[in-house]
Amino acid sequence: MSQYDVLCIGNAIVDIIARCDEKFLADNTIIKGAMNLIDTQRAELLYSRMGPAIEASGGSAGNTAAGVASFGGRAAFFGKVSDDYLGGVYTHDIRAHGVAFDTAPLTGNPPTARSMIFVTPDGERSMNTYLGACVELGPDDVEEAKAKGAKVTYFEGYLWDPPLAKEAIRLTARHAHAAGREVSMTLSDSFCVDRYRDEFLDLMRSGTVDIVFANESELKALYQTSSFEAGLDLIRNDCKLAIVTRSELGSIIVRGGETVQVDAIEIAELVDTTGAGDLYAAGFLFGYTTGRTLAECGKLGSLAAGLVIQQIGPRPLQNLRQAAEQAGLL
Amino acid sequence: MSQYDVLCIGNAIVDIIARCDEKFLADNTIIKGAMNLIDTQRAELLYSRMGPAIEASGGSAGNTAAGVASFGGRAAFFGKVSDDYLGGVYTHDIRAHGVAFDTAPLTGNPPTARSMIFVTPDGERSMNTYLGACVELGPDDVEEAKAKGAKVTYFEGYLWDPPLAKEAIRLTARHAHAAGREVSMTLSDSFCVDRYRDEFLDLMRSGTVDIVFANESELKALYQTSSFEAGLDLIRNDCKLAIVTRSELGSIIVRGGETVQVDAIEIAELVDTTGAGDLYAAGFLFGYTTGRTLAECGKLGSLAAGLVIQQIGPRPLQNLRQAAEQAGLL
Repeated sequence: MSQYDVLCIGNAIVDIIARCDEKFLADNTIIKGAMNLIDTQRAELLYSRMGPAIEASGGSAGNTAAGVASFGGRAAFFGKVSDDYLGGVYTHDIRAHGVAFDTAPLTGNPPTARSMIFVTPDGERSMNTYLGACVELGPDDVEEAKAKGAKVTYFEGYLWDPPLAKEAIRLTARHAHAAGREVSMTLSDSFCVDRYRDEFLDLMRSGTVDIVFANESELKALYQTSSFEAGLDLIRNDCKLAIVTRSELGSIIVRGGETVQVDAIEIAELVDTTGAGDLYAAGFLFGYTTGRTLAECGKLGSLAAGLVIQQIGPRPLQNLRQAAEQAGLL
Repeated sequence: MSQYDVLCIGNAIVDIIARCDEKFLADNTIIKGAMNLIDTQRAELLYSRMGPAIEASGGSAGNTAAGVASFGGRAAFFGKVSDDYLGGVYTHDIRAHGVAFDTAPLTGNPPTARSMIFVTPDGERSMNTYLGACVELGPDDVEEAKAKGAKVTYFEGYLWDPPLAKEAIRLTARHAHAAGREVSMTLSDSFCVDRYRDEFLDLMRSGTVDIVFANESELKALYQTSSFEAGLDLIRNDCKLAIVTRSELGSIIVRGGETVQVDAIEIAELVDTTGAGDLYAAGFLFGYTTGRTLAECGKLGSLAAGLVIQQIGPRPLQNLRQAAEQAGLL
């Protein structure tokens, strides 16, 4: 018997979200659409220049865990906050979604991670992340029972940025595989892929990771190719199952010789792309761990992603199970 | 020469916003649509029961100040935060709107005020406010130059809840009137009117307050009448100018024998009524302090209120000057 459908592992981050114009990104040398890592000094500088903001719990894999729970799935999360105000906010929100979250918080410094997210008029988000307490996530935080008791473990490639998290991932993967479970990851960001290409490929080729989520630019970065088709052929051989999202073009799922194409949902207005990939993964993994076909999994992913990009903030405000039922997907 | 168009004075509060169903309000004995005052113990209890939330700077008069600035008006604010995380958030946001905010923060306890706002499916908001540092706002926080240099001072009736703020208001009003300025207030909430009816009437009849903003239920509570028309006749004689908002019925403005009726704007979807009255006041006061007719002032108020209720959160995400220009109002 599984205790959880999906165990997510990621940087536990509170988002600070404001709109800006294109010029602001250029003036502040923020790479558009990317996750820019920043230190405390730059965090203070950017905050002093940031417009009125709202705060919302975020972090890639945390968003996915919240999404799985919103679909009615049983989700757990490993991630490190500090015992400060934002750590309390993060803990409240993920637990309020129904996610099992028991990683011991850090006492004192560094503080809970935060990401200043600037949303341009085209809806694209550009993230500026101070990792804070996330740098302390390590193998001691791996709860063996959860690692063994989750049908699928899902972690973010971003975890290669903090120093100790990759050890936690490898340990979790060993526990999971020992229990006959599967391990999945997202490549997170094309710049992140550039930083850790060889390690990510090794995770896949060594069988540490069974399932890979990527978007088109991450796929191309992984194989250093400009051809989407070439990338797709390569990833097909490097993992058991790969899911590649392509924004408004939908997604393509490959498993061995099998290829499934899924459409994106129609949206009224693109407001903020934050969380799109995270929520796609949530829908897919909820479907996957509840025994649905790849096409059905992809449709649940498209629905969740399509809903989150029509609002400000990284986690959908509506209940995803209800939304999926209304859409005839559950 | 005036230094500011509008000086706002109010409780400096960060909102913690989540959706809930009707049953949640009943189960937790929260008065729907009202501002419920709570202590630390109840704040902890309600937070433990609250769903996933987002945080956004709020507070009635603070929202109005942000709105005036968003229209391009020159706004200032008096309000008390503590020197903690939420105090930093509050200070950042109101200054990022372009509002002059220089009230010295409290050192240490009580912490910055927060209001847990539950939004039901009908869009109504029910507030649960822990006043925290707001109880320390007092006459020492009155900046005489700003009080004398603002065309209109605007304060919230909610300020009668903390113990010292009313002294700050009376002092500010004396400065303002000595400089030939006008003083306005909002009645804030019908339960607040029940608590301070005689004092509010005295503020109006003594000439401490020249202009009064109210909604229909506050007007009826003030005069303990079930007749809107009777209330309107009474308030017409108790202040120089009164503005009564009526949700989808628009607003009615009375000045001596003059009566102006203004329609609400058409909205696509009512999402969250938080900030509706605050933003109506922002639009009205921006228009009023820039020499527009009462009808024009009311239309600017209707626009700002109509925009804020179509989003989650108490301050409009879009620039109000641009929105007003697009609507042909500026």
